[in-house]
Amino acid sequence: MRILVVNPNSTGSMTEAIGAHARAVVGPGVSVEAVHPPGSPASIESHTDDVLAAPGVLAEIARRPDVDGFVVACFGDPGLLAAREIASGPVVGIAEAGMRTACYLGRSFSVVTTLHRTVGHIRDLAAGYGVGRQCAGVHASGVAVLDLETDPTAYVRVLTTARAALAADGSDSLVLGCAGMADLTGRLAADLGVPVVDGVAAATTEVERLVRLGLATGKTGEFATPRLPALLG
Amino acid sequence: MRILVVNPNSTGSMTEAIGAHARAVVGPGVSVEAVHPPGSPASIESHTDDVLAAPGVLAEIARRPDVDGFVVACFGDPGLLAAREIASGPVVGIAEAGMRTACYLGRSFSVVTTLHRTVGHIRDLAAGYGVGRQCAGVHASGVAVLDLETDPTAYVRVLTTARAALAADGSDSLVLGCAGMADLTGRLAADLGVPVVDGVAAATTEVERLVRLGLATGKTGEFATPRLPALLG
Amino acid sequence: MRILVVNPNSTGSMTEAIGAHARAVVGPGVSVEAVHPPGSPASIESHTDDVLAAPGVLAEIARRPDVDGFVVACFGDPGLLAAREIASGPVVGIAEAGMRTACYLGRSFSVVTTLHRTVGHIRDLAAGYGVGRQCAGVHASGVAVLDLETDPTAYVRVLTTARAALAADGSDSLVLGCAGMADLTGRLAADLGVPVVDGVAAATTEVERLVRLGLATGKTGEFATPRLPALLG
Amino acid sequence: MRILVVNPNSTGSMTEAIGAHARAVVGPGVSVEAVHPPGSPASIESHTDDVLAAPGVLAEIARRPDVDGFVVACFGDPGLLAAREIASGPVVGIAEAGMRTACYLGRSFSVVTTLHRTVGHIRDLAAGYGVGRQCAGVHASGVAVLDLETDPTAYVRVLTTARAALAADGSDSLVLGCAGMADLTGRLAADLGVPVVDGVAAATTEVERLVRLGLATGKTGEFATPRLPALLG
Amino acid sequence: MRILVVNPNSTGSMTEAIGAHARAVVGPGVSVEAVHPPGSPASIESHTDDVLAAPGVLAEIARRPDVDGFVVACFGDPGLLAAREIASGPVVGIAEAGMRTACYLGRSFSVVTTLHRTVGHIRDLAAGYGVGRQCAGVHASGVAVLDLETDPTAYVRVLTTARAALAADGSDSLVLGCAGMADLTGRLAADLGVPVVDGVAAATTEVERLVRLGLATGKTGEFATPRLPALLG
Amino acid sequence: MRILVVNPNSTGSMTEAIGAHARAVVGPGVSVEAVHPPGSPASIESHTDDVLAAPGVLAEIARRPDVDGFVVACFGDPGLLAAREIASGPVVGIAEAGMRTACYLGRSFSVVTTLHRTVGHIRDLAAGYGVGRQCAGVHASGVAVLDLETDPTAYVRVLTTARAALAADGSDSLVLGCAGMADLTGRLAADLGVPVVDGVAAATTEVERLVRLGLATGKTGEFATPRLPALLG
Repeated sequence: MRILVVNPNSTGSMTEAIGAHARAVVGPGVSVEAVHPPGSPASIESHTDDVLAAPGVLAEIARRPDVDGFVVACFGDPGLLAAREIASGPVVGIAEAGMRTACYLGRSFSVVTTLHRTVGHIRDLAAGYGVGRQCAGVHASGVAVLDLETDPTAYVRVLTTARAALAADGSDSLVLGCAGMADLTGRLAADLGVPVVDGVAAATTEVERLVRLGLATGKTGEFATPRLPALLG
Repeated sequence: MRILVVNPNSTGSMTEAIGAHARAVVGPGVSVEAVHPPGSPASIESHTDDVLAAPGVLAEIARRPDVDGFVVACFGDPGLLAAREIASGPVVGIAEAGMRTACYLGRSFSVVTTLHRTVGHIRDLAAGYGVGRQCAGVHASGVAVLDLETDPTAYVRVLTTARAALAADGSDSLVLGCAGMADLTGRLAADLGVPVVDGVAAATTEVERLVRLGLATGKTGEFATPRLPALLG
Repeated sequence: MRILVVNPNSTGSMTEAIGAHARAVVGPGVSVEAVHPPGSPASIESHTDDVLAAPGVLAEIARRPDVDGFVVACFGDPGLLAAREIASGPVVGIAEAGMRTACYLGRSFSVVTTLHRTVGHIRDLAAGYGVGRQCAGVHASGVAVLDLETDPTAYVRVLTTARAALAADGSDSLVLGCAGMADLTGRLAADLGVPVVDGVAAATTEVERLVRLGLATGKTGEFATPRLPALLG
Repeated sequence: MRILVVNPNSTGSMTEAIGAHARAVVGPGVSVEAVHPPGSPASIESHTDDVLAAPGVLAEIARRPDVDGFVVACFGDPGLLAAREIASGPVVGIAEAGMRTACYLGRSFSVVTTLHRTVGHIRDLAAGYGVGRQCAGVHASGVAVLDLETDPTAYVRVLTTARAALAADGSDSLVLGCAGMADLTGRLAADLGVPVVDGVAAATTEVERLVRLGLATGKTGEFATPRLPALLG
Repeated sequence: MRILVVNPNSTGSMTEAIGAHARAVVGPGVSVEAVHPPGSPASIESHTDDVLAAPGVLAEIARRPDVDGFVVACFGDPGLLAAREIASGPVVGIAEAGMRTACYLGRSFSVVTTLHRTVGHIRDLAAGYGVGRQCAGVHASGVAVLDLETDPTAYVRVLTTARAALAADGSDSLVLGCAGMADLTGRLAADLGVPVVDGVAAATTEVERLVRLGLATGKTGEFATPRLPALLG
Repeated sequence: MRILVVNPNSTGSMTEAIGAHARAVVGPGVSVEAVHPPGSPASIESHTDDVLAAPGVLAEIARRPDVDGFVVACFGDPGLLAAREIASGPVVGIAEAGMRTACYLGRSFSVVTTLHRTVGHIRDLAAGYGVGRQCAGVHASGVAVLDLETDPTAYVRVLTTARAALAADGSDSLVLGCAGMADLTGRLAADLGVPVVDGVAAATTEVERLVRLGLATGKTGEFATPRLPALLG
């Protein structure tokens, strides 16, 4: 089984880290490849970034009909519905997988994200995925995406935000609202004493089980393969 | 006052027709310009089309800081939230304006759209805009966007779909679910005996009054101007 | 084009101020007349006031078939649905127009109102209009309607309430929850740094554009002209 | 214990019938008085009727501080929230009581009403009372309020509508959507084989038990006694 | 008329107290019997307790076809829907009756419960009963069920929680979230100055009026009598 | 890794079939054991069955602290929340897993169930899990649980119901609403041309990936281990 993890931003070190995290959680016999579209924004922290990144996600998916399933590895799930039209295998976004996975772990979860301006979009996603009630709060750490890798205070700021979020929301688990936080999962779980869901791991294992079960996007209606414009890729 | 109407698809005859419709409804002293992004899909009838069209919409808006307000003239409202980040003047989509305008005309409205595969996206928009209850139904005429201009049976098919929709939904008004239907507004209203809302006219006049009232997107949070990546236009 | 603005309360100075505000925002060729029903409550600050004011609103509208469109200029929108039955032209309430207008300006808005006891009714209206999610909070300034005109501390109290509301709600814009606050719009926008929506201006310009577009209440069902009882006016 | 049942319309024979029905269901020691406001509409079948009837309902309640509890006996519940401000004893509307009572009888109920134009208002009430999901359908029999008493075909038309409603909705019970249908309750229950809820009986017995339990409207906030304008009664 | 009140837990002193409270509120000619299933948990304070208590509730009801109506007297309403299948008379839970009764007393209510871990279940019930919007908050006093009877500080802790809840929620009334709090009703109402709803009293009088009106669970669908397995009692 | 699949009913042949299906979908190194509580109902087709089956589910789980994760294999998910309190490993129900899995496959899904009386409960579950909007319909085949194994017409009746459901609902996938239908998955998918989700396979693979990711129920609040009454098992 082959899974393609698409990092919608163009920061290569993040793509590598995401790939490593995905590889670490799949079962035997599953190979994971991580790519990013050339020329997309370096990080995705606004609606504009989201719009600019989405076509590249589709192009990466369109050129890989040999792959069994796909992960869109940015917590805004850019281009997800379109990707379902284009791919024949299943496509899962890390926001939807992260939040739906947390639903199995208790009544409600809190999300810790990067900049404040991403909160509204994440709430929109939660509402659209039907987990608006389970998502007890979305909290910005103020740490920008690319600072997650480099800023030595990043961990403490994320931890502090998470701790306050859990106390305020009374949640049973924590969902990490950025692919760049995957590194922090284990440490946060240990420090917080609650289950911590990393969307990259959640989405990759969801794709793995969907492929294993022979399940993919239904193609009889809205998600039928569209005219594929030349512009794609 | 200057209003820019962006047709997200690249079909020039539609851009011209949309511009003419917008010009026909603005008040004295308002100039309307209609443009489309070069290289976007010829019509927008899938999630993929939507994703591919959105960056061009942003580029058109970004290059025109001299304009007072903007209309996104495709019923999927592609790139709308991002456009609000980029523009300093107000930005209105034709789906939101069409559906919100219909809310002033009674309890509920029906939408007539083009292909069946667009129905889900329009329902998502209605739910997101808070008019899910007022939107009593979204009905596909089966007429593709570009056939609206050329197919001699298009009018009858739209009319038949609209009549059945109003009867099934018990709605007070009809909303046209495609910028390419603007031409049909008056004829449909006469044949159906209910108010018919064309999103292009609705959005253009909304922008006009927002500009006149000195209102534009709030810029203190989510919609603050983003880093403008070089990729934008 | 002729627009009738009905102030549901019987305080003449408010009627005059409302008329002046409405006149200040309409386009060329639009005349605005402001009236109030004789004998209605001096201000509308309870469900009882609302009930007592509504018949007079209908009577004012019923006696003016010569007018093209109508504004109900009290933030409780008293008698709005009934007014749509009676009038042939469009009828818009200032609560619905104020809140729907704010929806074009960002993700969410806060409402500042007069007395605490009006909060519940405004929340009901927001829910009914489908903007319950966009309306991030309704906040009472504690300033009674008639004190808005006369109490020298009124502005500061409204400003203080608004500032706290925006901070607590994280909203992109402010909606003024009383026709008597129209005077404060510009000053508040300057002091707060966010768009401020006055319902009187919002509703009047909505009616103007509906009339220009040839749109009015659909009359094929719930809003068909009712038996007009002798009691009306 | 004294209960006042206010028929909001001015048709004396309906007031008498409503009073008789209410009297038939109260316990020992409870006296029921039925009144109607002079000069209200003869029947209530539009938003306009509703607006015109509500002030009279308040006046009837305001003049009877000696009474322990109140029923508003029209399925539109006109003036209900205002009545709660004015009365010190509990006030119950027949729509809210009818629909909430049906919630104890299974998963969902169907409402049979009079004219089609009342359907939207009843759906609004159901949503506002929080029983929108339990209310599986609102169905118009086409029988006008005053024809319920006089038209010999009325029963059959109501029965036919009810039977079709129960089949279409799969409901567990039926709620009668007009005070004028109280007479039909037993016969319909026998013919349909499901529990049939008459709002007049439901509301009167609700008031009886609230009074017995010493419960009335909370007066610490929104429903505190308002300034009582001279116009009231 | 005979009403059976089933205390789902096996603490005899609570059963007696519940029976006394129920008897105190019914009308003349109504007899109340209070029972509990042998062997159920001593108190119900977790989902596990709820699951373990429910079969005994059904057994108690199944063995009493001679009774006219039933109350399930635990604020988790364990086994309520199943009880409606089994009983021919009406069955009412104290959570649903308590919360629906409070809906007649204003816009919103607050619930005071025992341990924090019960909050989620009560919110689920409120949402399911359609009173999620009216239920402004569920607040844990930290007093365990059995401590309500014996801990001398229990009253003060419940009062303090209730006072803070009303202030935070701005509610019009209070609902007691445990059958074991019935004793405190009058004292709390006096100390708080708002209506206080005891679910036991609310449910018992609801059953009384349903029986008097000849209403019981509809049996044509979901709630038809099930195969009665031998395991039942 | 060890997974325990609990069939809540006591029909041994179903337990065996469920175990075989679960075993067929897990990855290498995962062992699956299938059990059922002695003395539970032979099938679960009513609220009463659900109540009677739940304690046995808890007992089976409580006696197996050696197991890594648990599946509750009845589409009513009986005892699921309580099981999360008791188990330290993750617990997943087949209804929640079936419906959440289908959310990854398109916009909406249809459920085909056994008897009509189960429809309401499944709709309740969908609403509670937040997939009420994605669940476009729940359709009864009329085939009783135990007839699925033995009635030669069962397949055709399920297929016919499913085909009609997909056409009526316009869904992208089908969810099988009974553990006893697991056998039919492949054949239905081939005959219908849409993805078909079997809850047993969905839940088992969900548990597998949760265990692999080190995720289990959060234990800091509502789902903390309860007092374990002696009655449990």
